[in-house]
Amino acid sequence: MTDRNIYLKTIPAGEAVATAISALDRDELVKTETIPVHEALNRVTAEAITARCSSPTYHSAAMDGFAVKSENTFSAREGNPVSLTKGSDCVAVNTGNPLPDGMDAVIMIENVVDAGDFITIESPSFPWQHVRRIGEDIVATEMLLPRNHTISPFDIGALLSAGIYDILVYEKIRMTFIPTGDEVLPFADRPTPKAGEVIESNSQVFKGLAAGLDIEFKAVAPVRDREDKLLKAVSAALKDSHVVVVGAGSSAGSKDFTRKVFQELGQVLVHGIAVMPGKPTVVGTAQGRLLVGAPGYPVSAVVCFEDILTPVISWLSGKYRPERNRVSVRMARRTPSKPGQEEIVRLAVGRVGSEYIGVPLSRGAGMITTLTKAQGFTRIPAESEGVEMGDSIPVELFSKRSGLDKVLMHVGSHDNTLDLLGDLLMGSDTPLRLVSTHAGSMGGLTALKNEMALFAGAHLFDPESGDFNFPFLEKYLPGIKVTVINLAIRHQGFIVPKGNPKGITGIESLGGTGVNFINRQRGAGTRILFDYHMNKSGLKPQDISGYDREEFTHMSVAANVLTGAADCGLGIYAAAKALDLDFVPLAHERYDLVIPERFIDDYRIKALIDLIRTDEVKKAISELGGYETPLTGKQMTPGIGLG
Amino acid sequence: MTDRNIYLKTIPAGEAVATAISALDRDELVKTETIPVHEALNRVTAEAITARCSSPTYHSAAMDGFAVKSENTFSAREGNPVSLTKGSDCVAVNTGNPLPDGMDAVIMIENVVDAGDFITIESPSFPWQHVRRIGEDIVATEMLLPRNHTISPFDIGALLSAGIYDILVYEKIRMTFIPTGDEVLPFADRPTPKAGEVIESNSQVFKGLAAGLDIEFKAVAPVRDREDKLLKAVSAALKDSHVVVVGAGSSAGSKDFTRKVFQELGQVLVHGIAVMPGKPTVVGTAQGRLLVGAPGYPVSAVVCFEDILTPVISWLSGKYRPERNRVSVRMARRTPSKPGQEEIVRLAVGRVGSEYIGVPLSRGAGMITTLTKAQGFTRIPAESEGVEMGDSIPVELFSKRSGLDKVLMHVGSHDNTLDLLGDLLMGSDTPLRLVSTHAGSMGGLTALKNEMALFAGAHLFDPESGDFNFPFLEKYLPGIKVTVINLAIRHQGFIVPKGNPKGITGIESLGGTGVNFINRQRGAGTRILFDYHMNKSGLKPQDISGYDREEFTHMSVAANVLTGAADCGLGIYAAAKALDLDFVPLAHERYDLVIPERFIDDYRIKALIDLIRTDEVKKAISELGGYETPLTGKQMTPGIGLG
Repeated sequence: MTDRNIYLKTIPAGEAVATAISALDRDELVKTETIPVHEALNRVTAEAITARCSSPTYHSAAMDGFAVKSENTFSAREGNPVSLTKGSDCVAVNTGNPLPDGMDAVIMIENVVDAGDFITIESPSFPWQHVRRIGEDIVATEMLLPRNHTISPFDIGALLSAGIYDILVYEKIRMTFIPTGDEVLPFADRPTPKAGEVIESNSQVFKGLAAGLDIEFKAVAPVRDREDKLLKAVSAALKDSHVVVVGAGSSAGSKDFTRKVFQELGQVLVHGIAVMPGKPTVVGTAQGRLLVGAPGYPVSAVVCFEDILTPVISWLSGKYRPERNRVSVRMARRTPSKPGQEEIVRLAVGRVGSEYIGVPLSRGAGMITTLTKAQGFTRIPAESEGVEMGDSIPVELFSKRSGLDKVLMHVGSHDNTLDLLGDLLMGSDTPLRLVSTHAGSMGGLTALKNEMALFAGAHLFDPESGDFNFPFLEKYLPGIKVTVINLAIRHQGFIVPKGNPKGITGIESLGGTGVNFINRQRGAGTRILFDYHMNKSGLKPQDISGYDREEFTHMSVAANVLTGAADCGLGIYAAAKALDLDFVPLAHERYDLVIPERFIDDYRIKALIDLIRTDEVKKAISELGGYETPLTGKQMTPGIGLG
Repeated sequence: MTDRNIYLKTIPAGEAVATAISALDRDELVKTETIPVHEALNRVTAEAITARCSSPTYHSAAMDGFAVKSENTFSAREGNPVSLTKGSDCVAVNTGNPLPDGMDAVIMIENVVDAGDFITIESPSFPWQHVRRIGEDIVATEMLLPRNHTISPFDIGALLSAGIYDILVYEKIRMTFIPTGDEVLPFADRPTPKAGEVIESNSQVFKGLAAGLDIEFKAVAPVRDREDKLLKAVSAALKDSHVVVVGAGSSAGSKDFTRKVFQELGQVLVHGIAVMPGKPTVVGTAQGRLLVGAPGYPVSAVVCFEDILTPVISWLSGKYRPERNRVSVRMARRTPSKPGQEEIVRLAVGRVGSEYIGVPLSRGAGMITTLTKAQGFTRIPAESEGVEMGDSIPVELFSKRSGLDKVLMHVGSHDNTLDLLGDLLMGSDTPLRLVSTHAGSMGGLTALKNEMALFAGAHLFDPESGDFNFPFLEKYLPGIKVTVINLAIRHQGFIVPKGNPKGITGIESLGGTGVNFINRQRGAGTRILFDYHMNKSGLKPQDISGYDREEFTHMSVAANVLTGAADCGLGIYAAAKALDLDFVPLAHERYDLVIPERFIDDYRIKALIDLIRTDEVKKAISELGGYETPLTGKQMTPGIGLG
């Protein structure tokens, strides 16, 4: 093994897990402890458990009524009643009462005539009728649970019923997480980060994931990028943890000390797993305990948890590895992948018609929101070069499959009013999750054509007719019947820094030098609008600095302006307002929702349309600023324009 | 509404849930609270959450290397390097560092030649290469989560990254459970119950089920069967609970006060749901809170929790109702059901060949072990008269579907050595769950014939040949190739009370009067053995008192003897020993495992056979007492007899 801080051969995650497991002595590492049964939920038995008492401990009445000797009732018939004297021939019992000696049946209270000192019955009872016999449920000394069994609520009921109050279980696995990095700010200080700073959050993601494994989790304060400090922190954590995880510093950079520290304290088994994101993972052992260096990027860290920590900890816990629900989905977009390593692609997934559709989200390892927006993920195998659009792929879900039926899949142009709808849809009686993928107006129409979305938001301006959307629908969705409903008329204009320092007044201001523009992607309605005005003004792409730099949302354009990365960009008023920027109006445009007729009766689409037609929505849109709502909720037809 | 304590019209559970929901004002009942984000796992947002900070808050290096102005690199080619002066043209950066002003790309450290004051590169970089741009993950002011969203570990990461430290959520639903009954003993007292007493355990089953709903749960001490005491307890619980559950006393008996107390405090909406078990459920409201009277039988109580409490509490919590994994299984046994009410049947489920097989378990509402032994349950609809053998039925699983592949399905004769195997199988590297359904030796062969089990335990004695099992295999499994492996030779004899008070010496002692026998079910190997010796002795069924009373396991026979319900029964030594009874030997017999050839390569069967052939198993069987192991693990052929 080399001492230089470069990756060892990267190996598949499964191999890394097997290596870790074979290097650990579970029996030595994980102790047993005796705990009260009523606190043993989800714990794992360390030995077979046998019943101490039977249940029931006695023959007992299973109904309210009268206990009898069944042979005394055999002759009872309708019209030929048998009388039984209370006290000697029969005894009143409630459910759960012990059966008096010599009696072997119970007659339900509904089936007797109570005549004071005696009862009469008109039908016979058979032996053990309505009687719970001793040991019917549990016989003393029988095995109730085998070893290595995860205790369920029902098990607790059975154990207590059998008179078992303490139980020998394996101790809970204890994990300590050590965040590292000079740039990280402890979230507990409630910081507002400046350039070069990030808020430490991976510890809390791991805490949440650890809760899913039922282990004890502790995060210590972030450690600075100093080898001696990290060494001290890991040594301290080893004292009371089965598993020590160092967050970030697991790569091969000049400030990455994880591997070195692991080597000083024990041995490094793996550096680098063949999974993207997640590659910079270190696995080692020290003092018989597991050491893991998790990558710093949040998605990579999650992959490290899922693919390395989860299987090893499940094994240490004596539990089956938890498995995600799986579903087959149709891929909405071509997704190439580098061969030689597995790639994990997060997906927005929802039911569209009779199929589940998966729209791949951004692949950046630094984007935690790709996990919050995703309903699941797919693994593109190491030997594959990627997935084609329309391919059927297996997806592991973050929740139940039935949740996908409550997803309202939108692909198209982004608008802040969609977030507003998304919030209100979750507030309805049948909460629906609006999953919106930003692909521009044209991207939305393409998705509808390929049956990859339930609806598309579009604001495509046709310079020739002066109309919105319809000319494009005829061209790009031939033969597909759609309903078009207006969501809002919105203002488009130049987003500029506060005070408009470059004095932008219109499109002409962009010509020549000195103004750095940020554009939207091809196919976006805003891009078409910009090109229209650019052509009208006589400017050409090469006249405009930054014309080739593309962003995918209004908010990203605004963020570029806020930070000075650009001097201006075309976008909606709401985005400028949100970041406290100034706005130079250029035009009004119609933002419509395009809905294929075949989905018009889908209960999710119905809920959406019903919602848009409420006054609550109109009011909320107006309050955002930069919108007009005279057409909101109305069905559009060709030629309406701005109404 | 009548005041008499009889059932109202029983209604389907779904209707009862709808009634409860429409009687509750959720907005009034469930308050909101602000809590720290890092403690908000699984809580539900009470409003849309928007980002406070962007993430990243600055353009940052995505790799370790040098930050550059990309336009200065455009001319670099292999063999035509570009030199960049450190400090002015390029700046060393680590992953996460902010990009120096004016620079727009990062070159990976691996791709530069470091020449002291300057670096040289041989390929161009494009704008924003290896740069995480401001707001790439999160843009300030954008909506991160809608209202009514259940917070995941990933959400916590995104919220903290966006500088959100507190969050408005709905308070957790608080449930108080009140056990009732004069006969119940608090488990906390660690009692050993006597006749007429039961250990209170439903509170702890509910506690475990409540944990699965992420609600706050409290159980109070058991309340005696007195109306005033129950009224006081419910009143007290209403003060700080959204949901008050009274355990037992929900039926229509003379000591059932639940409904009356609910009526005094509020209103009863439902008394009786059309589900078996679970019928005696009461639903009401008081002070705007939910009141539920849960049945006392453990399985009925669980059904009440699953079908009434779970959906109403999910709704109160703003969460989707949790759903169980479903699978289609083939039913192993005819299961009639009373029309007019839904019936819930617990099933042992496992994969046999390429199919999932479900074996119905006992249907008694008092048997908590039917829940601990079951892998899932099926609902026989109210309009159905039951399920035929071989029918395909939908099953709701208690765990993941993949768990069914780790189940080793046994149907056949019961023996304590099977529990021993079940324990050891869970201790192996790939833990397997032995699921054993007691159906007697003949029942096991029938199950094999119908392809409903992976193997069957049998000890069928053929009086004519003096051999075991093979004569029956030829007759009942014609054309089915099987492998027969001996598990043990065991002693069968009469289980009698300590001291053998009736002086039983052999089968002849059962003739005439004075001895009360308990028999095994038809088809059981023990029954065949008994009938053989009975015939040999000249006795007839009518000579033996209790010949018609049948039990299904050795332990049940022993339990009958222990309690005096019978004076003796035929069974194995281990059962007598387990309950500290005496044993009068009658015969030795061979207990074999019959395994269809088509399953012989199944990894579960292989693991089973490997285990049986270990010395560990032989030793453990010998230690049980009442067994001999000269043939254990050996493959049997016709004519071996007792070896």
